[in-house]
Amino acid sequence: MRTKSFRDMTCSIAGAVEDIGDKWAVLVMRDLTLGLTKFEQFERSLGISTNTLSTRLRQLEQNGLVRREPYQERPVRHAYRLTEKGRDFWLVLAALLQWGDRWNASGAGAPPVILADEAGHPMELRLMPKSAPEAAVVRRVLPGPGADETVRWRLAQRNAAPGDDAA
Amino acid sequence: MRTKSFRDMTCSIAGAVEDIGDKWAVLVMRDLTLGLTKFEQFERSLGISTNTLSTRLRQLEQNGLVRREPYQERPVRHAYRLTEKGRDFWLVLAALLQWGDRWNASGAGAPPVILADEAGHPMELRLMPKSAPEAAVVRRVLPGPGADETVRWRLAQRNAAPGDDAA
Repeated sequence: MRTKSFRDMTCSIAGAVEDIGDKWAVLVMRDLTLGLTKFEQFERSLGISTNTLSTRLRQLEQNGLVRREPYQERPVRHAYRLTEKGRDFWLVLAALLQWGDRWNASGAGAPPVILADEAGHPMELRLMPKSAPEAAVVRRVLPGPGADETVRWRLAQRNAAPGDDAA
Repeated sequence: MRTKSFRDMTCSIAGAVEDIGDKWAVLVMRDLTLGLTKFEQFERSLGISTNTLSTRLRQLEQNGLVRREPYQERPVRHAYRLTEKGRDFWLVLAALLQWGDRWNASGAGAPPVILADEAGHPMELRLMPKSAPEAAVVRRVLPGPGADETVRWRLAQRNAAPGDDAA
């Protein structure tokens, strides 16, 4: 039984999971989507080794989801930001959140975060006809009843550009 | 830097990716969602080693997404089916499909499959207010312009129960 590469599989799902790579990379994407940009922020948020974090960021950069920009010269430090492809990955994160909340995958009794619109009303993903008119939505991530200190710290790191909600 | 378990992270996304496990398990979930039930079907669909497949199916069973039913006595053979939690995972698969299609993650020029409603009209995930009335939707997966022989074979394995579209 030969093992095919995920990219050769003629399957957009296989290609998508290959682009992300592994579980850690999903959490790095979560933090980038929340507006975290610095290596130290990811380290603190994830409790991850420097090596694991470097590898995941480099892979996400190679796969076109992340771009790196120097923000300091001596020593050189980089800020990590999402490309358009990376920003668009919010859809998959929202689906994981919704499924995880529903099946209590986090082990918590109450959701740590709530996906909401500009007015704070909870939102959810639904399957709609592609032809249906699309409403512009500003997404926000609010701390939920199950938020702990780390979740609140993470959400407080957001630095959304004007007119661009980082969540 | 200590590494926390994904389950202790107070994050539904972390819990969700821990429940699934890895890239192979995502594809096993894809095939289960399409209605494949037999070990040999997964082997053929995925081009995966017996050992890798067994491990993933057992993990998905342990995490409550899959149940195993004997369908033959000598030798004992099992059919694998989704639990309610497992069926509900279609949301994440649809998000991966949509993102993968958009960013051409499969490497193919045209989408191998199309997510459609009962009438064959293309569907997509959108963020909606939770309070908005929900329409019942029958989901179907149709071969797309980029479908190859394996994709067509996979879609043809579906054995939806009456009134229950396996897609």
